[in-house]
Amino acid sequence: MSGFNHQKYRPMPTFKLADRKWPDADLSHAPIWCSVDLRDGNQALIEPMSVEQKLEMFSSLVELGFKQIEIGFPSASQTEFEFCRRLIDENRIPADVTIQVLVQARKHLIDKTYEALSGVTKAIIHVYNSTSIVQREKVFKLDKAGIIDIAKQGAQWVMEGAVAYPQTQWQFQYSPESFTGTEVDFAVTVCNHVIDIWQPTPQRPCIINLPATVETNTPNVFADQIEYASRHLKHRQAVKLSVHTHNDRGCAVAASEMALLAGADRIEGTILGNGERTGNMDIITLAMNLYSQGIDPELNLGSIEQHLEVFERCTQLPRHPRHPWVGDLVYTAFSGSHQDAIKKCLAIQKDDQPWDIAYLPIDPADLGRDYEAVIRVNSQSGKGGIAYLLEREFGVRLPRWLQIKFSQIVQKVTDQSGREVSGELLYELLWQHFGSLANYQLTSYNIKNADEQTAIDALLKVNDEPLTIQATGGGALEALCLALSHSLDCQINIKQYHEHALQSAASAEAICYVEAEIDGVSSIGIGRSQDVMGAGFQAIISAVAHRAAAIA
Amino acid sequence: MSGFNHQKYRPMPTFKLADRKWPDADLSHAPIWCSVDLRDGNQALIEPMSVEQKLEMFSSLVELGFKQIEIGFPSASQTEFEFCRRLIDENRIPADVTIQVLVQARKHLIDKTYEALSGVTKAIIHVYNSTSIVQREKVFKLDKAGIIDIAKQGAQWVMEGAVAYPQTQWQFQYSPESFTGTEVDFAVTVCNHVIDIWQPTPQRPCIINLPATVETNTPNVFADQIEYASRHLKHRQAVKLSVHTHNDRGCAVAASEMALLAGADRIEGTILGNGERTGNMDIITLAMNLYSQGIDPELNLGSIEQHLEVFERCTQLPRHPRHPWVGDLVYTAFSGSHQDAIKKCLAIQKDDQPWDIAYLPIDPADLGRDYEAVIRVNSQSGKGGIAYLLEREFGVRLPRWLQIKFSQIVQKVTDQSGREVSGELLYELLWQHFGSLANYQLTSYNIKNADEQTAIDALLKVNDEPLTIQATGGGALEALCLALSHSLDCQINIKQYHEHALQSAASAEAICYVEAEIDGVSSIGIGRSQDVMGAGFQAIISAVAHRAAAIA
Repeated sequence: MSGFNHQKYRPMPTFKLADRKWPDADLSHAPIWCSVDLRDGNQALIEPMSVEQKLEMFSSLVELGFKQIEIGFPSASQTEFEFCRRLIDENRIPADVTIQVLVQARKHLIDKTYEALSGVTKAIIHVYNSTSIVQREKVFKLDKAGIIDIAKQGAQWVMEGAVAYPQTQWQFQYSPESFTGTEVDFAVTVCNHVIDIWQPTPQRPCIINLPATVETNTPNVFADQIEYASRHLKHRQAVKLSVHTHNDRGCAVAASEMALLAGADRIEGTILGNGERTGNMDIITLAMNLYSQGIDPELNLGSIEQHLEVFERCTQLPRHPRHPWVGDLVYTAFSGSHQDAIKKCLAIQKDDQPWDIAYLPIDPADLGRDYEAVIRVNSQSGKGGIAYLLEREFGVRLPRWLQIKFSQIVQKVTDQSGREVSGELLYELLWQHFGSLANYQLTSYNIKNADEQTAIDALLKVNDEPLTIQATGGGALEALCLALSHSLDCQINIKQYHEHALQSAASAEAICYVEAEIDGVSSIGIGRSQDVMGAGFQAIISAVAHRAAAIA
Repeated sequence: MSGFNHQKYRPMPTFKLADRKWPDADLSHAPIWCSVDLRDGNQALIEPMSVEQKLEMFSSLVELGFKQIEIGFPSASQTEFEFCRRLIDENRIPADVTIQVLVQARKHLIDKTYEALSGVTKAIIHVYNSTSIVQREKVFKLDKAGIIDIAKQGAQWVMEGAVAYPQTQWQFQYSPESFTGTEVDFAVTVCNHVIDIWQPTPQRPCIINLPATVETNTPNVFADQIEYASRHLKHRQAVKLSVHTHNDRGCAVAASEMALLAGADRIEGTILGNGERTGNMDIITLAMNLYSQGIDPELNLGSIEQHLEVFERCTQLPRHPRHPWVGDLVYTAFSGSHQDAIKKCLAIQKDDQPWDIAYLPIDPADLGRDYEAVIRVNSQSGKGGIAYLLEREFGVRLPRWLQIKFSQIVQKVTDQSGREVSGELLYELLWQHFGSLANYQLTSYNIKNADEQTAIDALLKVNDEPLTIQATGGGALEALCLALSHSLDCQINIKQYHEHALQSAASAEAICYVEAEIDGVSSIGIGRSQDVMGAGFQAIISAVAHRAAAIA
């Protein structure tokens, strides 16, 4: 049965709770959040994060208000072990934050995990083993009793390991991995064996985490499973019931929300939903869903934009323009009737009244976004729109580093004028801020290249005086920078360099974007010319000119 | 109440159906699909599609197997009117496909809509008006009776308009726009007034479409609303109950799935979930959710990759790497334990047995994907991975047009060898296919630039013979192309040109990527040099050399 053929598949076993109560419940408060960005998120990256990136991300997570942060699998890799030690040894964990570490139910890994955590004030040890039918039959080749033995043994080792570190306040967490592929009653049985060993109390609760390791059914089935578990777990008052959903069917947020209705106390997820395959539940979306209904999300999402910059950089994954709450396009209404309705509602919205605007579930300003952009057609809201207009109208494709710098400039202009910015005005602003200045002009240049050395001989006009500069370097850019450095008595290094043709013909102009470091200070210049080399030269000279103007 | 403050918001009114049945239902068959890519999808684009792009997209939607396609709002814009006429006049609508058009409940717009559809074999006229509390109170300033009047009047005009075109087989559709912001009993009342006018029969059913114009609640609330409507709509056997969900809370797919459990017959959505703000329900995700459970999705998704190329190009919106079922990374397992489990399951998977592989809900080959890539660490699956490895290991940032060409070459190599491709091998392949050839070498060059003209004088070695070339042009690239054209007796035009520094210092090498058209045939060349100009020259000469080699 090769090719596209649905008969290769069978329905996943489903589960129905006859007397379910969850559909009558409402969301009323934030769950206990646990970020797994540094573990599940990190292990799914094409390029896993360095220790330095993890430290930066940990710091962002703390600032966002997470009180529980899974930091990795310290027994599995040296990087994760080191990261754990640096957090502890450098006192980077605030008093109200608990770190959590993952470990398989194997003795030597559990021992190594305790070693990694030595000296920490408090921590959650998260132990797991796989319980699903396919894992039992095909991967571990064990029956149910064998799986229970692994879980019990793991729970025992975790408890014994803690005894050696009495100065730390330990909390224990157990996950029946691949819970959604496991018969729900068996999963609960396994969890209850673990609870029997740990003997949690309401004062010292344990965490039972039920993962949708792979999302296999509609979210209502997951909710039935969670409500069943919530009713059948032993010592329920001493158990924090946690869920960890993945997005294989595109329903991870819905599944977590319904799990909360069904009795879950705690949510594991990631920022922007990063994670294995389709990713984990996106915490921003669920938190903002609560926020938009007047529920305190207990996360500091007002400054989310600055943190998303960190997350996007460290994960090297983009944010989709239509990502709920934080995508570039999600507060923009292009339809005329939507615009009209938004305008009418905004006109009568009062500051002391609950927000009630058609097509705008929240005030975009809450997340640092500009809702003026909402009611513009084909205009910009943020760097995406600016980049789009410049490309569409002028063929200018700003590199991302320049988009960020330039959008800050545009933001100031729109804030001051309160008016819409046209593509023409953006183009003017771009050249005004980074283009050539009258007092630094390139008049002509000669280049000689042989034996992999390039000699430049150029005539500039600087402050109305002719200036001849000369140097030899490995390439023409290097030669120009050397020549300028000598003549102007400064040190010039190129940090960023991008160039592209403006049209698709050899006669077309090229545009070049340069970030130069001039005596250690960043300065941006752009140049355009029919001559590809000339564009680069102009960009460098513009960067120098703007730096000179800033000093003057 | 400015800034991030949840107290600005109040809970959305909720709705609970005491005797709901939907949580006990299962998905068992595909719904009637209606693509709204060309309407809701199009109106939310920064740059709406041209008529030609719409024709291409329509054709893709037909090939994917859609039998109902909303093509626009022909009374609202000349482009949409023309597009509608071209579909009809050029006989582009297959016999088993019905086009659908949207129109507000206003007489002159309805008249214009019939004019746009004149001569079509069959069509769905989709009329709507807003019914939500906020729209009634703040936008239309009408009471409930006023809203009912608009709906009844619209239904009447639609029915009367059809009389003038008896040769067409008409179907009528009504939407209470902003249904999720409307009291559910009132929405059903409005719909029943419309049904009373249309008097549908099981042989000639009408469509009642309930849109989550803005997603306001958890999907279980939407399901309760849909089940209520399904029970209370008049002539239910003569009504196709449709839903149209948006993704403001990230739950559009879940809401549509639960609506199907609750009695909906039909789903409106878009490919990849494009649409206003956060977008519409993604049809690929819902269809593949069905497929993965052994249900025929009644769409031809086996060739989805080729169509996604069309959708991404026409909408200018990217596909996220973690998009369910079709993202670049969704069949890749980076975790060692996941890889191990997948390997063990694949080893014993039999062709005549249902698919049952841990962490892989479907066989990626069904969608034209390579699951060999699944079990590689930090390796490539498609152009994204190739680009990633080249950038990480060599600082080479292939432009997108070259990623596509190059990934086809790599694909052939991996197909033939069956082995993993390292970054080193990719780099070798890149230079082998596009780098300089021994029989076309640049020895030295001089450039003189003055008065906006650039003169080039270069020495090449072609087939072991020295060749001096000279020309003057607006820029150095143009001059080189002219000089080469003269000396080699051919016509050279640059189609694509990208250049960047390989490291962040003036002394670093630059790499340049060029697509040239040589006597009308595309040829790609790359060059690298310490000299920014030299890299561009070498790229052009490489393109010429590869074209010469192809002809020889």
